[in-house]
Amino acid sequence: MRVSTAQDEQLAELGQQLRVDAIRAADAAGSGHPTSSMSAADIAAVLLARHLHYDFDRPEHPGNDRFVLSKGHASPLLYALYRAAGAIDTAELLTFRSRDSRLEGHPTPRLPWVDVATGSLGQGLPVGVGMALAGKHLDKVPYRVWVLSGDSEMAEGSVWEAVEHAAHERLDNLTLIIDVNRLGQRGPTRHGRDLEAYARRLEAFGWHTLRIDGHDTAAIDAALTDAAATTGRPTAVIAGTDKGHGVAAVEDKEGKHGKPLPDAEEAIRELGGVRDATVEAAPPHEAPRRTGRAGGGLELPVYAEGDEVATRDAYGEALAALGTARDDVVVLDAEVGDSTRADRFEKEHPERYFQCYIAEQQLVAAAVGMAARGWNPYACTFAAFLTRAHDFVRMAAVSRVSLRLAGSHAGVSIGEDGPSQMGLEDLAMFRSVPGSTVLYPCDAQATARLVAASADVPGIVYLRTTRSGTPVIYGPGEEFPVGGAKVLRSSTRDRACVVAAGITVHESLEAARILEREGISVRVVDAYSVKPVDTAMLQQAADETGCLITVEDHRLEGGLGDAVAEAFADGRPVPRLVRLGVRGVPGSATGAEQLHAAGIDAESVAAAVRLLVAEAMVSP
Amino acid sequence: MRVSTAQDEQLAELGQQLRVDAIRAADAAGSGHPTSSMSAADIAAVLLARHLHYDFDRPEHPGNDRFVLSKGHASPLLYALYRAAGAIDTAELLTFRSRDSRLEGHPTPRLPWVDVATGSLGQGLPVGVGMALAGKHLDKVPYRVWVLSGDSEMAEGSVWEAVEHAAHERLDNLTLIIDVNRLGQRGPTRHGRDLEAYARRLEAFGWHTLRIDGHDTAAIDAALTDAAATTGRPTAVIAGTDKGHGVAAVEDKEGKHGKPLPDAEEAIRELGGVRDATVEAAPPHEAPRRTGRAGGGLELPVYAEGDEVATRDAYGEALAALGTARDDVVVLDAEVGDSTRADRFEKEHPERYFQCYIAEQQLVAAAVGMAARGWNPYACTFAAFLTRAHDFVRMAAVSRVSLRLAGSHAGVSIGEDGPSQMGLEDLAMFRSVPGSTVLYPCDAQATARLVAASADVPGIVYLRTTRSGTPVIYGPGEEFPVGGAKVLRSSTRDRACVVAAGITVHESLEAARILEREGISVRVVDAYSVKPVDTAMLQQAADETGCLITVEDHRLEGGLGDAVAEAFADGRPVPRLVRLGVRGVPGSATGAEQLHAAGIDAESVAAAVRLLVAEAMVSP
Repeated sequence: MRVSTAQDEQLAELGQQLRVDAIRAADAAGSGHPTSSMSAADIAAVLLARHLHYDFDRPEHPGNDRFVLSKGHASPLLYALYRAAGAIDTAELLTFRSRDSRLEGHPTPRLPWVDVATGSLGQGLPVGVGMALAGKHLDKVPYRVWVLSGDSEMAEGSVWEAVEHAAHERLDNLTLIIDVNRLGQRGPTRHGRDLEAYARRLEAFGWHTLRIDGHDTAAIDAALTDAAATTGRPTAVIAGTDKGHGVAAVEDKEGKHGKPLPDAEEAIRELGGVRDATVEAAPPHEAPRRTGRAGGGLELPVYAEGDEVATRDAYGEALAALGTARDDVVVLDAEVGDSTRADRFEKEHPERYFQCYIAEQQLVAAAVGMAARGWNPYACTFAAFLTRAHDFVRMAAVSRVSLRLAGSHAGVSIGEDGPSQMGLEDLAMFRSVPGSTVLYPCDAQATARLVAASADVPGIVYLRTTRSGTPVIYGPGEEFPVGGAKVLRSSTRDRACVVAAGITVHESLEAARILEREGISVRVVDAYSVKPVDTAMLQQAADETGCLITVEDHRLEGGLGDAVAEAFADGRPVPRLVRLGVRGVPGSATGAEQLHAAGIDAESVAAAVRLLVAEAMVSP
Repeated sequence: MRVSTAQDEQLAELGQQLRVDAIRAADAAGSGHPTSSMSAADIAAVLLARHLHYDFDRPEHPGNDRFVLSKGHASPLLYALYRAAGAIDTAELLTFRSRDSRLEGHPTPRLPWVDVATGSLGQGLPVGVGMALAGKHLDKVPYRVWVLSGDSEMAEGSVWEAVEHAAHERLDNLTLIIDVNRLGQRGPTRHGRDLEAYARRLEAFGWHTLRIDGHDTAAIDAALTDAAATTGRPTAVIAGTDKGHGVAAVEDKEGKHGKPLPDAEEAIRELGGVRDATVEAAPPHEAPRRTGRAGGGLELPVYAEGDEVATRDAYGEALAALGTARDDVVVLDAEVGDSTRADRFEKEHPERYFQCYIAEQQLVAAAVGMAARGWNPYACTFAAFLTRAHDFVRMAAVSRVSLRLAGSHAGVSIGEDGPSQMGLEDLAMFRSVPGSTVLYPCDAQATARLVAASADVPGIVYLRTTRSGTPVIYGPGEEFPVGGAKVLRSSTRDRACVVAAGITVHESLEAARILEREGISVRVVDAYSVKPVDTAMLQQAADETGCLITVEDHRLEGGLGDAVAEAFADGRPVPRLVRLGVRGVPGSATGAEQLHAAGIDAESVAAAVRLLVAEAMVSP
């Protein structure tokens, strides 16, 4: 059937079909969230049959609406909807949650109709904001972004970052539907069935709101029509519903969260049995094919060897140049673009620069949304503050999107601002992201090259920059492949190899000069690619020198030292390993004082090498 | 002087003194944020002289008000206030931002009057909510919590989690003062000087709001009086101010953020010169001395060896028992207490159980606020969702507070729910926290003991639990010292040592049984204390077996494998090391299927040992 011209009772029937299918899926799996699916079934039915513009045969169509199920635990509803759309069949529906099934416990983009993974609550709206921004300012296609969220997740601060951002950006192509079913997993939500509580808050931020009975298909239809017709601001449809609607054994009852229905067969009977309606959604919006990359080759900035240039400066300058060469590159700022130097891009390409204010979850979520729409986002703030968005980074990896995150003001070397501003855990955080790439250049030249290279690296790329100036040590022709490292000093007499990255490369070079005067020759390696690390080079250095010393402006746990150790995690004989890094909580001091106090300056490196070399002579 | 009875002009004078001192401090340091201090100087003056109940000689007095400078970059203002209160002298003021000075770039509790570190924006209000909850429900002392925040930081979602929470809890002992100076670090804020924009939002959440001219001391005084007199809801004083107020060269001008004034001498002249008023704040509120711990010894649950018990169950049961033995223990939940089993505590001690709903930043922030008030908080949610609060954990370490965080549903073994719900990065995150303790018990007995032991461990303690049942392998008399490990199988014929924690301990024991049948003897270690790890035992195992294999239900980066490798980071010869852990992004499957797919089940461990032992024979 094509329900767009259908009667309300057909919509109600479709809602029942979705309920039945959600129950069947969870029953087959023996787990899952049928009751949370049943509350939103009528909403989903009306959305699919009357409002969603989507070609399920061509999920990549640029004119498709986007549907984000923020309450990802209600995945049975989503999969029931896919069956109603003819995208999957009953047999597949019943593979729910089983090994190798695409129908996972929470939706992921293993399914071609899922843009982003959900299941960590409070992420759908912020990511939807990113998609809506892309629709309005980048794609310039009138697709609509529909976000279906639960009521419990409205407690997440990330939702309110998005509420603020969407209103500020006047995202009238974004609709939030809140399934207010009153019950969270352990009992009543904070606001219960007080629809007005949600409306009051959203309106204060500038949203258009509608309160409806979420089981009245005509009311749902009218609200979604109203939302689509509203201009100048986003719309929230606040729908009062019953968890487990339609089945007396579970309807609006506590203790029924996240489990199959006690008697699925009886419940399906109560709902009128299995149905097999197929619904054709409205066709995609007209969308001009996006033009390819802008012409013009990439003209990266060039730095003179010996000049002192902060890598954050090179980052901003390279980003601006990259934006000229490639029109898919977009940059997002969290109100610190003058510090991260992302504002260099803003000056050249203001139309592709997005200000997210001090809201790091929204910063990363917007980048995820844009990446899901095919853009190439670079999101930037202080390395320390990216920890705010850790859960969004984690979920971005599950979403398998490709995006670039840059953290400035790495390490104790920032100096006087003190520990709150120091990125000291960022390498640990980004190394633990599956499939991530972690880059930490030591000079302007390397930074510029890596900014450009990162644009084509799949997955999540993290690039770490330094606040203060560091000498340019590489010539303009130098290449920096991801996964590589540079041997900066080497001889056949090397008694140890110092492995550094970023600012400690310069300290290590100075340490090597000090030691050379004492007759101790050490190798120095710039491990600019922290993940993947250059295993072959490290193994060679270990074979030839027997001792590796890692030096990092980062905590000892999870950073460069661990990365280097992992190069020997294949069972091969391991060299002696010593790690220098930041212990404890620093205070205020100059950058040089901080490096010394942390034991990662040239003198400290030299001292560590002397000790290690002496020990190696005693017990070789 | 005692300004509480003083005239408005004396308050204005005090405001000028604070401005002058902020300028002097930043000028001496050569960096810092004088203009952000100057906008809030009149507010601080009136607060100190007329409203703050505080004995600067006895910062530990339980009846003191709490003052949280959420806009921590305005530290020069705070330090100027301390001078006006007679707590520091001019000489110390001028040590601002220098090495070893207590007056850091952003305030930390190295100063006895600072309860919690600030500088990561958007944290003051959520932490203040924790303090206000403690005042109302735990200390039961009528101290007031004053939070001074900037306008830019109102974009942080964490602020809105706190706004919601404070209104819901009717925290009339909490006052938020927003210094709306219109300018962020890179230009105008989102709402500029639109005080109404902030008021509308806060009122929608149920706050009492007042809009004032933040440079009118009489208006400030009236507003703070009104705030203190308002009952049943928190109050926000929204103060319109000028950044750099009082000095024409910088007042309300862009580009003047975060740097000393261009001509400090001239600015001080313009402000009327240096002043030396000393102000006595009002005395602390009456506070009954808190009674010591509740009587009654600790009666931990006991589990029978061989029974299958989930460590999360043991966690909840032990927590309830601990709460009976100690009345300083409080528990915080993020609407998943039935999953983490924290609800066992709620049943026994509802008056010390705090529901934070799905707002993990507020969850941890409330715990930080309570810890700063001397309570012993245990905050619990899924391990995966603690990543939401990463920045709060990071700052808690800078605040040097002691608190316990528990993450349930660790690893792929949760099964069908899929990757969004799996804690796979939590060990990496918590290991990188300075001074942290990371515990990961494998059975109910160990869990109960570690819950109890953690109550007296200083700093941030993380405890990781497993969703599914695991066999009890320890007897009731077993002790689990922090920093220890257990050798579960050992012989003189051991060819390798498998180091596991949590669920992989059981897989490793099974692997050892399989290998034993093949004539390969392996040692098995339960590294329940991941940080600090039992270095001595690992070194001994390495010496005796030559090969270590780590097995963890966590990513390869930053977890147990890295912890074990660090036991050899002192330059000693390193054993062969092999790591088994989770690579890539899992889908849905049963727990057993997940462990197998990740290569961390018994069969996989056995296969790895076989390979390693064979290799060792080829190249010993």
